[in-house]
Amino acid sequence: MPILTITTDFGLKDGFPAVLKGVIWGICPDAQIADISHSIAPQNVLEGSLALWRAYSFFPAGTVHIAVVDPGVGTQRRPIAAQMGEYYFVGPDNGLFTPIYNDAARLGWAAEVVRLTNLSYWLPAVSHTFHGRDIFAPVAAHLANGIALRALGPVIDDPVRLTLPAPERTTSGWHAHITVVDIFGNLTTDLPADYLLNDEGPLFRLRGHEVRGMVTSYGERPPGQLVALVDSENFIELAEVNGNAARSLQAQVGDIVDVILGGAIKNE
Amino acid sequence: MPILTITTDFGLKDGFPAVLKGVIWGICPDAQIADISHSIAPQNVLEGSLALWRAYSFFPAGTVHIAVVDPGVGTQRRPIAAQMGEYYFVGPDNGLFTPIYNDAARLGWAAEVVRLTNLSYWLPAVSHTFHGRDIFAPVAAHLANGIALRALGPVIDDPVRLTLPAPERTTSGWHAHITVVDIFGNLTTDLPADYLLNDEGPLFRLRGHEVRGMVTSYGERPPGQLVALVDSENFIELAEVNGNAARSLQAQVGDIVDVILGGAIKNE
Amino acid sequence: MPILTITTDFGLKDGFPAVLKGVIWGICPDAQIADISHSIAPQNVLEGSLALWRAYSFFPAGTVHIAVVDPGVGTQRRPIAAQMGEYYFVGPDNGLFTPIYNDAARLGWAAEVVRLTNLSYWLPAVSHTFHGRDIFAPVAAHLANGIALRALGPVIDDPVRLTLPAPERTTSGWHAHITVVDIFGNLTTDLPADYLLNDEGPLFRLRGHEVRGMVTSYGERPPGQLVALVDSENFIELAEVNGNAARSLQAQVGDIVDVILGGAIKNE
Repeated sequence: MPILTITTDFGLKDGFPAVLKGVIWGICPDAQIADISHSIAPQNVLEGSLALWRAYSFFPAGTVHIAVVDPGVGTQRRPIAAQMGEYYFVGPDNGLFTPIYNDAARLGWAAEVVRLTNLSYWLPAVSHTFHGRDIFAPVAAHLANGIALRALGPVIDDPVRLTLPAPERTTSGWHAHITVVDIFGNLTTDLPADYLLNDEGPLFRLRGHEVRGMVTSYGERPPGQLVALVDSENFIELAEVNGNAARSLQAQVGDIVDVILGGAIKNE
Repeated sequence: MPILTITTDFGLKDGFPAVLKGVIWGICPDAQIADISHSIAPQNVLEGSLALWRAYSFFPAGTVHIAVVDPGVGTQRRPIAAQMGEYYFVGPDNGLFTPIYNDAARLGWAAEVVRLTNLSYWLPAVSHTFHGRDIFAPVAAHLANGIALRALGPVIDDPVRLTLPAPERTTSGWHAHITVVDIFGNLTTDLPADYLLNDEGPLFRLRGHEVRGMVTSYGERPPGQLVALVDSENFIELAEVNGNAARSLQAQVGDIVDVILGGAIKNE
Repeated sequence: MPILTITTDFGLKDGFPAVLKGVIWGICPDAQIADISHSIAPQNVLEGSLALWRAYSFFPAGTVHIAVVDPGVGTQRRPIAAQMGEYYFVGPDNGLFTPIYNDAARLGWAAEVVRLTNLSYWLPAVSHTFHGRDIFAPVAAHLANGIALRALGPVIDDPVRLTLPAPERTTSGWHAHITVVDIFGNLTTDLPADYLLNDEGPLFRLRGHEVRGMVTSYGERPPGQLVALVDSENFIELAEVNGNAARSLQAQVGDIVDVILGGAIKNE
């Protein structure tokens, strides 16, 4: 059965995600639909792009991913659909799919983006405030039904791209940035774990706290201790064992983590 | 595959919506089920009725909509099911379906309401506190399976109706009411957009703030500005561009919006 | 179609539950998946065990229940799967399934627990922080596909068991404990309703408040009144009619409810 996902800043209170599902099932009655998140901070395109990016590749080939964080709804910003490798994406052209464009380039995937112009795949009446319902959901359902990407509109080669956070080289190591604070208060950074692959003892500094070296799993240290480890997406993460590092450190997305290569050994 | 939706004040913490799904799948194994909202304020029947109403018609013909906001559970309030046009509805007879009765009357739909009395379509044991699980979910699943509405119990012609908010005529225009504050803090009113169709410059007053004229989309004004526009359901909405009007104006459901026809022009 | 459920402390913000669904659909494309709760307090295994327990038996025979509240992820704690009667369970061996082991023993169900060791049913790469994705979701999907429990690993007879709350006998009746505070603020206890079956007038004391006797449904008393009744799982519950007892009484999970048999009559 066709599979679709939805990532939005719509929340779960007002029924907006359900409306997208109703529209999808009207076009593609057998669709399986998963909610990735509807709790993206309102209009935070970067947060939405990272949430989708962390989840999309665990879905089967052919999955159609809808993302709607859309401060420009109703303006001239383009509605788009894309095929990147074996996945499809539908949403506003505001950078939401930037990390996936990067994956496609890095992994050598076939990649194509089209501007949605073929009204025959939209709902008959299009509002100025809810393109998730009127454009993106019906287009995604048609893609799930097997409609060709190029039937939706002309190919474009200039989709909007966000500047994504990236670690910066320092004289002693890296300035990494917190990219996600998850529900456990774990602090994921933009530092790929393999950047530290050959380092015997990195030291991490964040908001006046230090973490020396890395652990393999939370349970290697007693509750309450700050640890650094490789997260489930192979980035460096700081966490408090059985606690909430974000709360304890008053840390938030964007904070810099100072990473000193070999620093845990040199300072001992 | 049969499609059902669920709208409740059950929240997502305690597992109640999942229990309804388990019961439904036990009777109708192929059912597709969408959650419209489980965040209706506890026992707020009006809020539940509007949430269901804003979403129901975007689902395919034949969809069975369950709604359970049910302060009278276990008392003499009747359990009911209804067919309105191409949709089915199941829930307590406390007014939850009022806006849909109105739609049916306005649009000339076939409409029939039955009192649920046929125990053979309920769970064998019925609690006094959870009719969503014991009565409404199994009845809805049987409807999704194709059981006739009249098999569920006798037709009634006096279902409970809520008094819904409606705009009031004033000497200079309308007193509209805020009916929904959505997750973005946008303020939807009960004033249908076509009431202003021929007005060249309405003025809106709410809690000491004024909005002159209307825009087509949020993006026509700079962030932070209050605007009036037509919402995705064709009602007048007040919003703060890329902001949260409810928070900025301390506005809430029930507040009056004073609409002065032509007021934006006259006062210029 | 195969049915699975998911109960976790993952929250709905970060996309973790969706990732499990993507993994499941990659293995078992037709699976129906219900979220029981993702709002278990972080690492609160007891809360997770009770949430799953209150919901699991309303799903059809053959349902595979995944539960992941897993403070020991990445350590030596065992990953397990179990068959209890007609249901399957997959998760960490930390006591999450204790109430279900008890149900199986009480009801004389066939019961078998295996340690997950057969890597061919896991994702190829297993992280140290997200076994829900890498082990439990794929194993559950294979179970849903009909793989035999014993194919997953060797049978064990010593799964970890929690000490569950249980009412204590007093000279005048029972000390019951609040086990769940639901979204309505209703206070469920560990006192089975049939313990009071022959009592003509129990008195309940909680945090300086008294409730005399029991009602059948909330609606028998005026709004704002505290009542005792049988909840939908056949335990004694204290509730405030159309209100929030937890808020009014500042009550929480673990609080003792003093139950005096016949106390409502004796003191009158």
